Amino acid sequence: MFTKNIVGGEFSSEGKSTFQSFNPELNRHNAELFFEATSVEAARAAKLAKIGFEKFQKVDHDKRASFLRSIRSEMERDKTIILDAFCAESGLSRERGEKEFTRTVFQLSSFADLVEKNEWIEASIDTSDHPAVPDLRKQLFGIGPVLVFGASNFPLAYSTMGGDSVAALAAGCPVIVKAHPSHAKTSGLVASAVLRAIVKNDMPPEIFSHLYAVDFKVAHQLVQHEAVKAVGFTGSFHGGKALFDLANNRKHPIPVFAEMGSVNPTIVFTENNEDKYDAWAQVLSQSMLTDAGQFCTNPGLIFIQKSSTSKLFIHQLEELFLNEAPKCMLNSSIAETFREKKQKLLAADLGVFKQSTNEVRENYGAQAFLKVDAETFIREEQLREEVFGSFSVLIEFETYLEILSCLEVIEGQLTGSVFVSEEQMKNYRELIQQLTSKVGRVILNGVPTGVRVCPSMNHGGPFPATTDSRFTAVGIDSIYRFARPVSFQNFPDDLLPKALRNKNSFGIARRINGEWTKKDVG
Amino acid sequence: MFTKNIVGGEFSSEGKSTFQSFNPELNRHNAELFFEATSVEAARAAKLAKIGFEKFQKVDHDKRASFLRSIRSEMERDKTIILDAFCAESGLSRERGEKEFTRTVFQLSSFADLVEKNEWIEASIDTSDHPAVPDLRKQLFGIGPVLVFGASNFPLAYSTMGGDSVAALAAGCPVIVKAHPSHAKTSGLVASAVLRAIVKNDMPPEIFSHLYAVDFKVAHQLVQHEAVKAVGFTGSFHGGKALFDLANNRKHPIPVFAEMGSVNPTIVFTENNEDKYDAWAQVLSQSMLTDAGQFCTNPGLIFIQKSSTSKLFIHQLEELFLNEAPKCMLNSSIAETFREKKQKLLAADLGVFKQSTNEVRENYGAQAFLKVDAETFIREEQLREEVFGSFSVLIEFETYLEILSCLEVIEGQLTGSVFVSEEQMKNYRELIQQLTSKVGRVILNGVPTGVRVCPSMNHGGPFPATTDSRFTAVGIDSIYRFARPVSFQNFPDDLLPKALRNKNSFGIARRINGEWTKKDVG
Repeated sequence: MFTKNIVGGEFSSEGKSTFQSFNPELNRHNAELFFEATSVEAARAAKLAKIGFEKFQKVDHDKRASFLRSIRSEMERDKTIILDAFCAESGLSRERGEKEFTRTVFQLSSFADLVEKNEWIEASIDTSDHPAVPDLRKQLFGIGPVLVFGASNFPLAYSTMGGDSVAALAAGCPVIVKAHPSHAKTSGLVASAVLRAIVKNDMPPEIFSHLYAVDFKVAHQLVQHEAVKAVGFTGSFHGGKALFDLANNRKHPIPVFAEMGSVNPTIVFTENNEDKYDAWAQVLSQSMLTDAGQFCTNPGLIFIQKSSTSKLFIHQLEELFLNEAPKCMLNSSIAETFREKKQKLLAADLGVFKQSTNEVRENYGAQAFLKVDAETFIREEQLREEVFGSFSVLIEFETYLEILSCLEVIEGQLTGSVFVSEEQMKNYRELIQQLTSKVGRVILNGVPTGVRVCPSMNHGGPFPATTDSRFTAVGIDSIYRFARPVSFQNFPDDLLPKALRNKNSFGIARRINGEWTKKDVG
Repeated sequence: MFTKNIVGGEFSSEGKSTFQSFNPELNRHNAELFFEATSVEAARAAKLAKIGFEKFQKVDHDKRASFLRSIRSEMERDKTIILDAFCAESGLSRERGEKEFTRTVFQLSSFADLVEKNEWIEASIDTSDHPAVPDLRKQLFGIGPVLVFGASNFPLAYSTMGGDSVAALAAGCPVIVKAHPSHAKTSGLVASAVLRAIVKNDMPPEIFSHLYAVDFKVAHQLVQHEAVKAVGFTGSFHGGKALFDLANNRKHPIPVFAEMGSVNPTIVFTENNEDKYDAWAQVLSQSMLTDAGQFCTNPGLIFIQKSSTSKLFIHQLEELFLNEAPKCMLNSSIAETFREKKQKLLAADLGVFKQSTNEVRENYGAQAFLKVDAETFIREEQLREEVFGSFSVLIEFETYLEILSCLEVIEGQLTGSVFVSEEQMKNYRELIQQLTSKVGRVILNGVPTGVRVCPSMNHGGPFPATTDSRFTAVGIDSIYRFARPVSFQNFPDDLLPKALRNKNSFGIARRINGEWTKKDVG
């Protein structure tokens, strides 16, 4: 059944077109034939999501939480087959699959906890002691059906029941997933788990649709559908920007949160830090290599301070980086693009290009870097474009002013990292401030990969890292992308949403007349 | 000096083009000649704002608060001349001016309190007890320079130092105001007060620019300027949508919060409510008439349930509404548009059109309404377009299903109101839910005008009421339009922003490892 689309909680396979996913490791198609969604199915999914939204709004928060936990259990029941599919469709290791699975179910639990607590709705009450002054009470509600795009590089954590979907469901928004065709089976198995959880928890089936499509036609149709009220996307700049533009050109524009990759500037101050070279080269090369560098947090720009010993550091980094065996990439098209982009930079002849000389199998990506000076970096815009895979530009800079000038030309990023000794840090306050103004997360003596899923994580950043720097895509605060406030004026107590009534029956913190408190009103 | 532009804290009048504001009451131009900003001045304002942002970020929150309070004092010093200008430029009454002045300075104080408390930044800390797990700390910062448009209908509360500007400054964002030419003097006097407060509080002068422009050229230039990071606008759909589109078509799109008016559906259940007709007709007609109906919260659509006595209610409302003397409108162009739009609807011959027959002086607006049946309302899209001024469409509906169908065709709104007895309310839960899904504020037995400025107010709503339903334009929560989170990973304590250090020196509520607390870390 996972080869069929899910339309408003029902399996559906009305189209004639099918496709197969691909095993990049074995360089052959996987067995299953998946049904592409038709435009009729897509339209039905949107229409049902609208109905689902009305029903879902009436579901108590604790039931919503149980539903999320139930999705977790259902996924865990199928963990083995999900991970088999994960590996067969992504070329990623079982170990990575385990990690990503753990993260995905952790996200389900975090949002279940969040929703159950009822505090995320930011209940606010302003009472009145004068008949001419109205009583006002406000809380957040789900914004409406959310369209979520499965990401190629996170078949679980950013796909069918990844961060965007779980945030949307937690907020009370139906979800329509446009599954990534590269990992259709992984997605389909997760979708089946969601469906079982819907049935077991008596949720309105209309709140979940899961559509297969190889091209963007169905996706574009959905972004433009009036029933869809927000979009969550993780992927390329090209893809995200196209959705953003479509959504803004609707008769009624809707918010699109698109996370569109980054080159994650990483600055290494080598001077007087020879004792740290080993550790830094180790952690950096690992970050550059993990899972073939297929992360939006891959350190794509590494600025290295020229010092009397910096060649040593570069040599160490080079050795560790280039000697490792190239890894399998997510699919053949990504591997191809990786090759092309490297080739283009090599051809541009902007500096020293080095590439792993180890064996590169079909669909594998040979890690490489390009070493340039700061002047070239500032002049050549193409050096600041993301090359998705194990590729970094190393920029040797001479002076503090030079590194500041380099940062000046960099666009918005998810992260920025600085390697520097504790004693030296104080001298670089200005640099850290400049970095802060460009990125969503500043890291000291650490690498951007290995995103910790916790409330204080900000996974976002100024355009073009994302389409809206005001929100994070990771952690419970990501729920605010899909929620909007409504105020109720002069409502009798029993007609108010429960969280806004005089009695604080949920025992939550509420802002009453400007002060956060857990007390009842009056 | 108030006739000059302010560019980065300095008076400037480089252009040759001047204009005068207009006294609609006296039907003649006011004396002062204002200098239109040149494109060079506008570009300088943007460039300086960028510098101002860097400086302003370093200003402590308590100093930012003192600055806002100082703007209040400086405005209060000039209150008399500001209100003289207010009346001479808007045709609004002194009483209204007093009210709006009070609201404006109240807003300054609320935001000063908010900023001083330091809690709005939502400090969040996740510590680590394992070397492989990073320490993460997050808080909100200002998004960057904000471009604010003065609104025609709120010369104080939504203009130079109105809601948008004060929210932006509170968040740490420099402000560039594009003053509304209709009330240039009012704006200029307030801008001068801001300038004095900047000097007295030793604020970076670059954080404030105040530009005069009659057409949208300079405004469009600024929306597209790379230094501008967000836009606040209150005005027409046409104007707001144009800015929204421009901002989204930048190389680096920026968020635009445009509040673009509403028709504010108001539903009156007449059945068995004869005892309430007097009061309801009174409050409704007042809401329709106040300040010539020039509010985004004007009740433009009034749905009246047909009952055995509903004619009585309509008659009462009609009498109260039509008999009052027409009022002066904000400027001659608004008065002219009002006349035209009424004329167009009258010509369309869709129902019973009634207009005040009292004397209508130049620039005054004769209040009017158009009475139609539900079917006509559903069929005719033009009936749902805002007519800015004292004009409402009265729609008589027969059944519950009919009013639900009417609501179905209505677009996003700032507010929706229901007049109904307490006992009857329970029968209309579905209607209230439907209304909730379309609006930012639901009101029972009250009118949409008279927006209470308090934390629980939501002044916003789904498109086209605003360009982003996730934010309010009124109340302290409006600060979140202009703020973005940044996470700090593995920072030594003394390099962290103060609010994120182990010691909770501000004594604020912080989310530590997922729990809100006022404790120190560790």
